[in-house]
Amino acid sequence: MGAGFSSCSHTTTFFAASTTLFPHRSKSNFSTFNPHFKLLSQTLYYPKPTKITTSRSSSSALSPINSGGRAEEMKTQEEKSTQPMSDLHNIDPELIQRMAYDALVWTSIHGLVVGDKSVPRSGKVPGVGLVHAPIALLPMSFPENHWKQACEVSPIFNELIDRVSLDGEFLQESLSSYNLWFPLGRIGLQVMNKNGGCFYFQTHGYSFPDARKWQARGKFIEIRLGLHRSDYMLDEQTKLLLQIEINTISASFPGLGSLVSELHRSLLNQYKEQLGLDSRRIPRNAAVNGFAEALAKAWEEYSNPRAVVMFVVQTEERNMYDQHWLSTEFPFSCFPQLCNTYDVTTIRKTLAEIDEQGVLQPDGTLLVGDQAIGVIYFRAGYAPTDYPSESEWRARLLMEQSSAIKCPSISYHLAGTKKIQQELAKPNVLER
Amino acid sequence: MGAGFSSCSHTTTFFAASTTLFPHRSKSNFSTFNPHFKLLSQTLYYPKPTKITTSRSSSSALSPINSGGRAEEMKTQEEKSTQPMSDLHNIDPELIQRMAYDALVWTSIHGLVVGDKSVPRSGKVPGVGLVHAPIALLPMSFPENHWKQACEVSPIFNELIDRVSLDGEFLQESLSSYNLWFPLGRIGLQVMNKNGGCFYFQTHGYSFPDARKWQARGKFIEIRLGLHRSDYMLDEQTKLLLQIEINTISASFPGLGSLVSELHRSLLNQYKEQLGLDSRRIPRNAAVNGFAEALAKAWEEYSNPRAVVMFVVQTEERNMYDQHWLSTEFPFSCFPQLCNTYDVTTIRKTLAEIDEQGVLQPDGTLLVGDQAIGVIYFRAGYAPTDYPSESEWRARLLMEQSSAIKCPSISYHLAGTKKIQQELAKPNVLER
Repeated sequence: MGAGFSSCSHTTTFFAASTTLFPHRSKSNFSTFNPHFKLLSQTLYYPKPTKITTSRSSSSALSPINSGGRAEEMKTQEEKSTQPMSDLHNIDPELIQRMAYDALVWTSIHGLVVGDKSVPRSGKVPGVGLVHAPIALLPMSFPENHWKQACEVSPIFNELIDRVSLDGEFLQESLSSYNLWFPLGRIGLQVMNKNGGCFYFQTHGYSFPDARKWQARGKFIEIRLGLHRSDYMLDEQTKLLLQIEINTISASFPGLGSLVSELHRSLLNQYKEQLGLDSRRIPRNAAVNGFAEALAKAWEEYSNPRAVVMFVVQTEERNMYDQHWLSTEFPFSCFPQLCNTYDVTTIRKTLAEIDEQGVLQPDGTLLVGDQAIGVIYFRAGYAPTDYPSESEWRARLLMEQSSAIKCPSISYHLAGTKKIQQELAKPNVLER
Repeated sequence: MGAGFSSCSHTTTFFAASTTLFPHRSKSNFSTFNPHFKLLSQTLYYPKPTKITTSRSSSSALSPINSGGRAEEMKTQEEKSTQPMSDLHNIDPELIQRMAYDALVWTSIHGLVVGDKSVPRSGKVPGVGLVHAPIALLPMSFPENHWKQACEVSPIFNELIDRVSLDGEFLQESLSSYNLWFPLGRIGLQVMNKNGGCFYFQTHGYSFPDARKWQARGKFIEIRLGLHRSDYMLDEQTKLLLQIEINTISASFPGLGSLVSELHRSLLNQYKEQLGLDSRRIPRNAAVNGFAEALAKAWEEYSNPRAVVMFVVQTEERNMYDQHWLSTEFPFSCFPQLCNTYDVTTIRKTLAEIDEQGVLQPDGTLLVGDQAIGVIYFRAGYAPTDYPSESEWRARLLMEQSSAIKCPSISYHLAGTKKIQQELAKPNVLER
């Protein structure tokens, strides 16, 4: 997950991000907490920094420049999607250079940045060793019907993840025979209470402290927050929209992705005459707002005004600004329309720090450095390398035992594993 | 000029930036083109990047944290300004660390950045080798009466610069006996037409092409745009607000300075409980908008919709983002409230590029790379090192001969020299 995007020649890839808070507060079974699910229809590629990809092998394709000056970014007929996309090489190289320069300026002053891996401290200290995020210079064209399809299935996939997460038997069947690194490899999965919607587990060496107390905190366990991102591929052979995966933990780029949409809109406006593309046809991308709103809603549900939202982060994170864009939504912002949207404090802690500073109170409240934790947002803890010692495992266990609302819960985390997604693709499994 | 700020122990330094377009269109002799002159009441210091200055020798001083939670950033009584400012060391070091971290995040995602001198290309290519601008963590307290005084004298100083620029005899008297590097050292100053308000000059080796044609373009010469910044020092001994200098060319930091105000406002909001400072007492800093508005107004006065605004820049400029914030105001922006404020295109050229690509048309229009230049905004050309060869001098001459509105005009440039400011400080000179 993290920064991993699939892309290949002659296919277009995009991802849809959506937020869901369960249990549902609305009447419909399929509605999401946030009625406007988020679409990040732009792609972020990771070529070498400072270079704008113009290679044919890139999955970025430019809309044709029509003589009538009308954009065809979103084609409304499926057959249109089979037309070869126009070649970026047809654009005047000098124009590309100018647009690339302006794009780089834009990224620099609007925070579309990452840490530069050639600067050692860039993943630890903010404000140091910044470099523009690798970007596609222009938005790719994408068939509108497939885009709408992805939007429509987004809450359905969220519902699916939620239902799978509640089906402990299915999860155990699917996962138990595999030596999965997490949590099966290290933590012995033990379904203590299927109906509670949460997996209680014990690790090698750690026994579950008191199941009865845990159950008493059931009301917190039942609040499940999902911040998901689905990655799609438009297959040229079958003309189908194929889901590559759905990410249920540490789904990245709500921040930078939203900015890429703004950058593209800005470039299309600035070079309207030369490109003939209509910036209004770029779908609005408000993923960062949606994610922040969902986290704030979960925090509100926790009902402790003194509690904070804790971002669990890696010790070194060059994609930290994507995360900071989310927390910026909380306590402070430069621009009036974002200012103090939510009066929620965020803190950032590594797993090792949580192990060192974390204390579980009798009522299940997790204290980290004297701060009560209302919501735990995992932007780390998904890779085996995130658990280099027992310390990190202790931290994870501590969090799972707490009453804090986890995003994701352990069951969402498990439901998002590739193995489960593979199982779900088999015949008659979804019908279960 | 450029990044040079005066600061010393136990004094407070700030600078006021204002814009003026002459001749006046309003009835009052002392009104400015832009009725709300700009104040950048924050300071930017240049210690080593990534460190927030907390040293006593810094000119940054923190307002006292009052038990009543009431800010005293601006004292309304002069005597209050004599009170020693509270010591930054009184604040909990852990709190300072947290604020510093948040400040660094803020700078990174809001474009309060410069090029890192340890990265070779950071002064040439945008988006590469970025580092947060060196900043004071919190705003300094400053007596309100002195601040208001600086605001009030701002248009008067602009008027003074304009009148001095029109007094060729005084300028020649003051400057001719000195071997000033520019323009006297290289360019023989020759006052051809005092009443025209512009100095016609000839260089060693370049003769003035045709004075009559020049005069025919008088209407352009008479439009004078000033983007000035006054630097002040509050003297502890005399209790007086002392002007250090007024900058009439390449006055920097309208962009980053405006952002520093926003950063301080944001931090004061975020740490309101701990600091007890009221962010509403930070004066609004709209210098970047004012500068952009003034440049756009000058462009409009030039009356050629196809003309562009040309930024004359150094070949290597690590403070490029301060400049880019200005041009961002023109053609594109991320946020709706800034988007497309002015539909003016900007280009950036070095003096050498202007010499190479520039052509003067018979009617006085300057073409650079086939683009007509309406306004020339000098962010280079003030230092001897900006003219390493004849090429750069040819470029300057070409621009001075053109009908483009220069910011500053050669006469504003001369009026802003330290020698002139020294002369103006002598008795009976202002009365002239």
